[in-house]
Amino acid sequence: MAVYTQVSAEAAAALLARYDVGKLMTLKGIAEGVENSNYLVETGHARFILTLYENRVDPDDLPYFHDMLAHLHAKGCHVPRFIEDREGRWLQDVAGRKACLIEFLQGVSVSEPDAGVATEVGRALGTMHRALAGFNGRRANPLGLSNWRPLFEKCDAHAAETLQPGLCNRIAAECDYLEANWPKNLPQSAVHADLFPDNVLILDGKVTGLIDFYFACTDSKAYDVAVTHSAWSFSVDGSQYRSAIGDALVAGYVDALPLGAEEREALPILARGACLRFLLTRLYDWINTPAGALVSRKDPLAFLRRLDHYSAHGLNM
Amino acid sequence: MAVYTQVSAEAAAALLARYDVGKLMTLKGIAEGVENSNYLVETGHARFILTLYENRVDPDDLPYFHDMLAHLHAKGCHVPRFIEDREGRWLQDVAGRKACLIEFLQGVSVSEPDAGVATEVGRALGTMHRALAGFNGRRANPLGLSNWRPLFEKCDAHAAETLQPGLCNRIAAECDYLEANWPKNLPQSAVHADLFPDNVLILDGKVTGLIDFYFACTDSKAYDVAVTHSAWSFSVDGSQYRSAIGDALVAGYVDALPLGAEEREALPILARGACLRFLLTRLYDWINTPAGALVSRKDPLAFLRRLDHYSAHGLNM
Repeated sequence: MAVYTQVSAEAAAALLARYDVGKLMTLKGIAEGVENSNYLVETGHARFILTLYENRVDPDDLPYFHDMLAHLHAKGCHVPRFIEDREGRWLQDVAGRKACLIEFLQGVSVSEPDAGVATEVGRALGTMHRALAGFNGRRANPLGLSNWRPLFEKCDAHAAETLQPGLCNRIAAECDYLEANWPKNLPQSAVHADLFPDNVLILDGKVTGLIDFYFACTDSKAYDVAVTHSAWSFSVDGSQYRSAIGDALVAGYVDALPLGAEEREALPILARGACLRFLLTRLYDWINTPAGALVSRKDPLAFLRRLDHYSAHGLNM
Repeated sequence: MAVYTQVSAEAAAALLARYDVGKLMTLKGIAEGVENSNYLVETGHARFILTLYENRVDPDDLPYFHDMLAHLHAKGCHVPRFIEDREGRWLQDVAGRKACLIEFLQGVSVSEPDAGVATEVGRALGTMHRALAGFNGRRANPLGLSNWRPLFEKCDAHAAETLQPGLCNRIAAECDYLEANWPKNLPQSAVHADLFPDNVLILDGKVTGLIDFYFACTDSKAYDVAVTHSAWSFSVDGSQYRSAIGDALVAGYVDALPLGAEEREALPILARGACLRFLLTRLYDWINTPAGALVSRKDPLAFLRRLDHYSAHGLNM
């Protein structure tokens, strides 16, 4: 949530000169998204987000994200397109980084969603999966089932136990359970895989944008539903399950795209997997990010509490 | 250059409901200004900057800044106004911080100014000083002559010597010189006191905004010219003096508001004072800010090099 690479007005103006978008009128570094540098760019014609890719995004993955967003935009979904310059190029070099000029979408991310918003978010997710039926791009999920135990083993056990005594055994047992029981034959799709409230723009109760596709990958549609369910249906610290939100989210999704019986039955274990994924990445960052660093650390235990809920109650209250 | 305090869309919408500015359509944390949290806020009517004041700004000083900007705006200067709500209030409480909704100004900050831009910046500074002739607000400069030695004494000497051997003696000698020779009777005014390129917005070679008035205070007009001269007329690291920029800046200023003979003669020593002020505040921050913290540390020595130039050559090449 910070700007890592400085882009001068001169460098931004030189970039924009490659595009038919008018000349630079505003350039503001903005604090959002994953570990990239983002600028709000305004020209006489329109506004854009200029993203410079830092360490977390592999430039080799950018064509997948580009193609997915272009496909979704062509299907009428509200997602930000990568803008092409006069020569048809959407991938640029700015200040020593790979960079893209991206469509700006209006709307704000809500912190306290109600059931009405959750229904719309579920519907937007289902509509997105439906629109992706004809999309042929493939990207293995780098944070899927097979990656969880190796990621756990990279976390310092002593630091994990300091955070919460017994955490290592709990995670190891969860890895055992998920590896033994993970559903293998669910319908696959390109999925967002990170649809937190931060990544949904809303205006007047309607979804105006799904953003930040940098974890998008090929996985089961139901897993994407489970990720979204875990991200939206709890208090931020994970201590309170809000079943009205969770129910509305699934109902909105099903309204756009039916869930098969196997998908429905798999939701509780998929949700446990989603929780383990965020627990582990947050735990790794927690242990390996110095306090006071540019990135604010997120509480791993907020997803341990969600995991506890799903383990005990599934998607029920 | 980061967002310290999170403002939710719900909190921002509740704030905007107090104003006649339309409803919230965009809320983006932006990385700019001194150590405050800033958001770009868009409504159906207009755009604004929402600033939350963190540690560095004393809320008791805000009325002075408000009055100065209101005065300048009434005189036609391009500065951002504090917006009043329906009850005439411009100072609010947001997320536990004092906060103001501030006019958004277009334009970008240049990194590599040419003489044409420098002329316009000098002219804008002179025009501002001229417009402030009837402004009666007073605020002592908290980073003026009498504060430099105490600030130096708060810096850890060992750390300073590690940065540059001999630095402590150099600073002490400069304090001696400036205390003995500082001009006392120069014409006073409200001044910006921090008019770095970051704090000037430019569009098509014209100044569209002077921003970030949080160091504004009562001091000599010529000192403000000297601060601006030191901020604009060198390469960022201070190793190269760009006399064409410096000359253009002073010429632009004089075109808007004459400098008296005493003011002109004082510019070299005032410029040395300006350099010591930024050298000391940067040195203090350098020593007391952990590496990797949210605030990126600026090189103190960039102002030692400027000080060396002014000591040897004044405002000449």
